[in-house]
Parts: sequence; structure tokens; C-alpha cells
Amino acid sequence: MPETDVDLAEFDVVGIGNALVDVIAHADDSFIRRESLVKGAMTLIETERAVSLYRALGSAVEMSGGSAANTMCGIASFGGRAAYIGKVCDDELGRVFGHDLRAVGVSFRPGFPEADTPTGRCIIVVTPDAQRTLNTYLGVSSLLCPPDVDAATVAAGKVLYMEGYLYDRPAAKEAFRAAAKIAHANGREVSLTLSDSFCVDRHRDDFRALVTDEVDILFGNEEELMSLYEVESFDDAVARARADCALAAITRGSAGSVVVTPDEVIVIPAEAVERVFDTTGAGDLFAAGFLYGYTQGLSLAACGRLGSIAAAEVISHIGARPLVDLQKLL
Amino acid sequence: MPETDVDLAEFDVVGIGNALVDVIAHADDSFIRRESLVKGAMTLIETERAVSLYRALGSAVEMSGGSAANTMCGIASFGGRAAYIGKVCDDELGRVFGHDLRAVGVSFRPGFPEADTPTGRCIIVVTPDAQRTLNTYLGVSSLLCPPDVDAATVAAGKVLYMEGYLYDRPAAKEAFRAAAKIAHANGREVSLTLSDSFCVDRHRDDFRALVTDEVDILFGNEEELMSLYEVESFDDAVARARADCALAAITRGSAGSVVVTPDEVIVIPAEAVERVFDTTGAGDLFAAGFLYGYTQGLSLAACGRLGSIAAAEVISHIGARPLVDLQKLL
Repeated sequence: MPETDVDLAEFDVVGIGNALVDVIAHADDSFIRRESLVKGAMTLIETERAVSLYRALGSAVEMSGGSAANTMCGIASFGGRAAYIGKVCDDELGRVFGHDLRAVGVSFRPGFPEADTPTGRCIIVVTPDAQRTLNTYLGVSSLLCPPDVDAATVAAGKVLYMEGYLYDRPAAKEAFRAAAKIAHANGREVSLTLSDSFCVDRHRDDFRALVTDEVDILFGNEEELMSLYEVESFDDAVARARADCALAAITRGSAGSVVVTPDEVIVIPAEAVERVFDTTGAGDLFAAGFLYGYTQGLSLAACGRLGSIAAAEVISHIGARPLVDLQKLL
Repeated sequence: MPETDVDLAEFDVVGIGNALVDVIAHADDSFIRRESLVKGAMTLIETERAVSLYRALGSAVEMSGGSAANTMCGIASFGGRAAYIGKVCDDELGRVFGHDLRAVGVSFRPGFPEADTPTGRCIIVVTPDAQRTLNTYLGVSSLLCPPDVDAATVAAGKVLYMEGYLYDRPAAKEAFRAAAKIAHANGREVSLTLSDSFCVDRHRDDFRALVTDEVDILFGNEEELMSLYEVESFDDAVARARADCALAAITRGSAGSVVVTPDEVIVIPAEAVERVFDTTGAGDLFAAGFLYGYTQGLSLAACGRLGSIAAAEVISHIGARPLVDLQKLL
């Protein structure tokens, strides 16, 4: 009775990612040029650069972020059961991060402490066109390694969700592989978000092998998918994904999203949004809606629609986590 | 040539207050009841309570606050020159606080360090009616004492601005008196905001003596003014203020504000606001607009109008500091 097994799972989704606090500020395009930022992308920065960039920045707001953590909060906001594995320091930002997960009902597994390496942070510059440019100082989040991945937690989640950003450090990459093996050994599904086209560029071969070998559900946006397969057209990328994965959900900004399997292609329009304030978290919340629907056994079209609803909510305000109970939007 | 003297002042306004980082979260009225909070008021809390309240709270956003600090940011946002004296710890929240002042051009004078007492924080619960309930853990901010008040800075500001909240600790009260003396000795004006009607209750006699002896410009809302004079009607309170102060600017929420001198009463309507999101900072930003106008030599009616414009901006979004350049609203 596999249905009974699934119903007994403690979590709908278990996420693993870089645990980051977002530092969000507004700036115009001249700031982006002056600071030589790569607009729209995520760039990894070291301590010195983090300090100088923060100094140049206007007044900011701090709120918990981290791509997979945002997704887990979205799932909890829909009423789903989510757990999160990610490393923070026992400092103020680390405490804020843990609080904000627990406050929305996400079970937090922070892994093992590491002396003094501070909690990671992501400096997000929002330009007047609502685009966000991310500059991530990973701090302790990047020290995630296999012992931090609590096997019982991974085994207890219907779907494992991992962010591609983790692939930037070898030990985290190992943790990622270990988690996927635990999930599969327990009859769970493994999902991956490609995270960022530059991140895909940095680790293309690894990502391709992973998608082929381990990934049951692939998330990403069209640029990331085209980068993964090094193709020039979206259609070519979709064809490759259909050959590689059992299921892929690809976002296309205001053009909505496409959900594909080897057998079908489902096109889902974007939800109407009165005004786009800040696109931070759009992909994270699309994945949240999709996975919430998926773990409730909804049709793929319904999953995509939940993704669109959650993404629409999060882009209509500042910050990468929902401000309202997503349940109420259903 | 007194005009030349005034023009040579380095700062338009120098503020002194409790340096706090706001921790802002939404909750409904049942949370207020369950946690026995005093809705709409500022309550001082100790470490243990701060920890338990934060634990009970939903996910939050952290942003720099502190009443007088908000006011100084508003003045800078209008293009005025502001300085701020307030104590923080060399911890993450302290660094955030300093950054956010400097980022908008406010000169920050953090006073002398005090070992390990953490940066103060104010847990703000915003209810669906947009009212805010403040729970302040003062931390190091309350250790402000006379040596922290940089005499050269106070002497260099046209107007000294002090928040009544400071009156909750004896050493800070002394610092406050010392600052007023320095300002007057240098031919500057002294202003005070009453901050909170419960705060006025706690220190009524001291406040009355201070208003009579030292204060040139009094700020407050109608409840605070009525509490100060222990009268039942706003008109009685206004009559008492006109007898006591050279100038008082009293806010009345959506009913606007009243600016009074011994000779005149000027009624200023509130600016229209499409939707009130969060009233945090309304009084702080009214004072900012008023003092910016005042230090530019504008008429009292114009000063009040600038106050209304700044207050309207800050209540139309979450957070107690302006999100746009207030200059652009003129």
C-alpha cells in the first residue's frame, strides 16, 4: 500500500540550501554600474567585498531569505509540512533566521555549529524596474557537509528539495549527493532547482549528471535550462529536459510557466499582478506552490497554478517570503 | 548678525534618543490579548520577556528604528543636515543601525562603548487596523549618560531634539538635561517629543518642569498632551501648552495637527493617504517635516504641512522611515 506510506510521511517537503539573511535596499542603475554588479544575477562575494558593498548601500531592511528556505516557508504558508536543513551561526542573524522559519511552522535542522564563522547574508539591490541583483556572502552556510544532513529528516519527507546554489562548495556538493541517496533509499523523490544561470555555468557537467542520475523533479527558469543544455532556444531546452527528467517545471517570468514530462507539455499563464515591486523569491515561491500541490496529489496543471499564485503574491511586495497566508488565496 | 550665525550651524537638527532596531511582525488582536500587550502603547520589557515574546511572534522584518533616529532620517530625506546621538553595541544590530543612519546622510555619534550589553530592539506588533504595539528591550541604548553627549555636536545644531522615552532611566535623564544646557549656552533651541502617554504618566512632574524651564518647541500627540496636563479635553491641554511653551506642534492622527504659540493656533489637515499600512513612525516623521521647515525658516503653517506630508508617506508602508526621498514630495 504505497499510498499509506506516503500519507505517513512526517513532512511533505524537506529543503536543503544556503541559510541566508537578506539585506534588501533600493538603488538605481547608476549604483549597479558604479559598483560593477552583474544585474539580475547572483554573485558570490567574500568578506571584504561584503563590507565595502554594504558601506556603499543605502539604508536597508533585514529579513530571512535563502532560496530553499523561502520555498519551505511558502509550503508552510499553504498549510504543508516542511523541514529545512541549512547552517547558521549562533549570532543575531542566525537567531533571526531560525526564528522566522519556526514562526511559520517550518521544522529547522541547523546542522552542527562551526566556531565563529558568521551567518551568511545576501545583499539584494532592488532597482526601479523591480529587478533584483544578489550579492551573497555565504558565511557559515557554505560549510554544510554530509554530517549536517539529518538522515531521519530526509527520510521523513515525501520530496527532497535542493538548491543549485549549494553546488558552489565541494563539501556541500557531497552533502547534496548524500541527501539524494538517503531520499531514494527511502522511496522518496528528489527535486532540484537550478538556482541561477551563472551557477549552472560554473557546474554544468555536474548538474547534467545529477539531473540524469538523481533528479525526479527539475525546477528552473528558461535561462537556467538553456544554460544547462547549452542550447539557443527554449524549445530545444524543453525537448532535452523531457528526455532527461520525469518532470520539469520551468518559469518564464511574465510569460508564466511550462510543466513538462516525457508525455506532456502544460502551459500555465502567470497570475495577474497589479504592480510588481520586487521579483525576489518569485522562483522560490513558484516551487513552493508547485510542490505543495504535488505532495497533496493534485494534477500537474493545478500544481503549476498554485506556483503562479504564490509567485504573484511574493512579487507584489518587498521581500522573498509571503506576507499573507497563501492558504487564503486558494 | 544672528542670521549668519544660524547659517553657519553645521547641523539643522541634532537628535538624542534610544538607538533601537525595530523587529516588525504582523499579528491579530488575539495575539495582543494572549500576550497581554498594551495595544497602541510602548511598554519597556526586560531580557526574559523579550526572548519569550519574540519566540511567540510570527516571522519578522528587522529595520533600524528609534523615535528620534527616525526623525533625523526624515530630516536628511528632506535634504536637511542632521546628527544623531544614541548608544549601540558593536554587534550586528548595532552595525545595522549605524549603517542605516549614515546611508541617508545622518552624522552618527554613538557615544562610548559599553562591554557586552547588546543593541536595543523594539518588537513591534502591527495589527490589521494598522495600529502598532511597541515592546522595547532597551539594551545598551538606555546606558546613555552625560559623557556620551558630544558637546561640539550639540553646539553645532540649530535645534536639539530629544525623545521623552529617554526619561525612563536616571543617567539618560541627566544626559538630556546636560544636552539642553549645552544647546542653550550656544544660543540653540531645544525641542522635546513627549513620545508616549504612558511615558508621560511615569514622569509627569519631571516633564512639566522640563517643558517650562528648557523646552522651546514641544512635540506630542493629543493623548500625550492631555496626560501631561492631566486635563480631560484637548482644548484645555492646548490652552496649557500655549501658556507654557513658545511653540508646540500637536498631532491628532487622521484629524491632522495643530501648531500653537502664545499668540496663534494653526490647524493643519492630514494629507490624504490611499491606504494606511502601519502607523509606526507617524509622529517621528511629522516632527521631521516640521523641524526641516522650521530650520529652513518657513512659516509655521508650512512647517506643519511638511510634517503632514512626511507622516503620510511613512504610514503608507511598513516601517518607520521614509522609502522615498521626501524632497521629491515637495
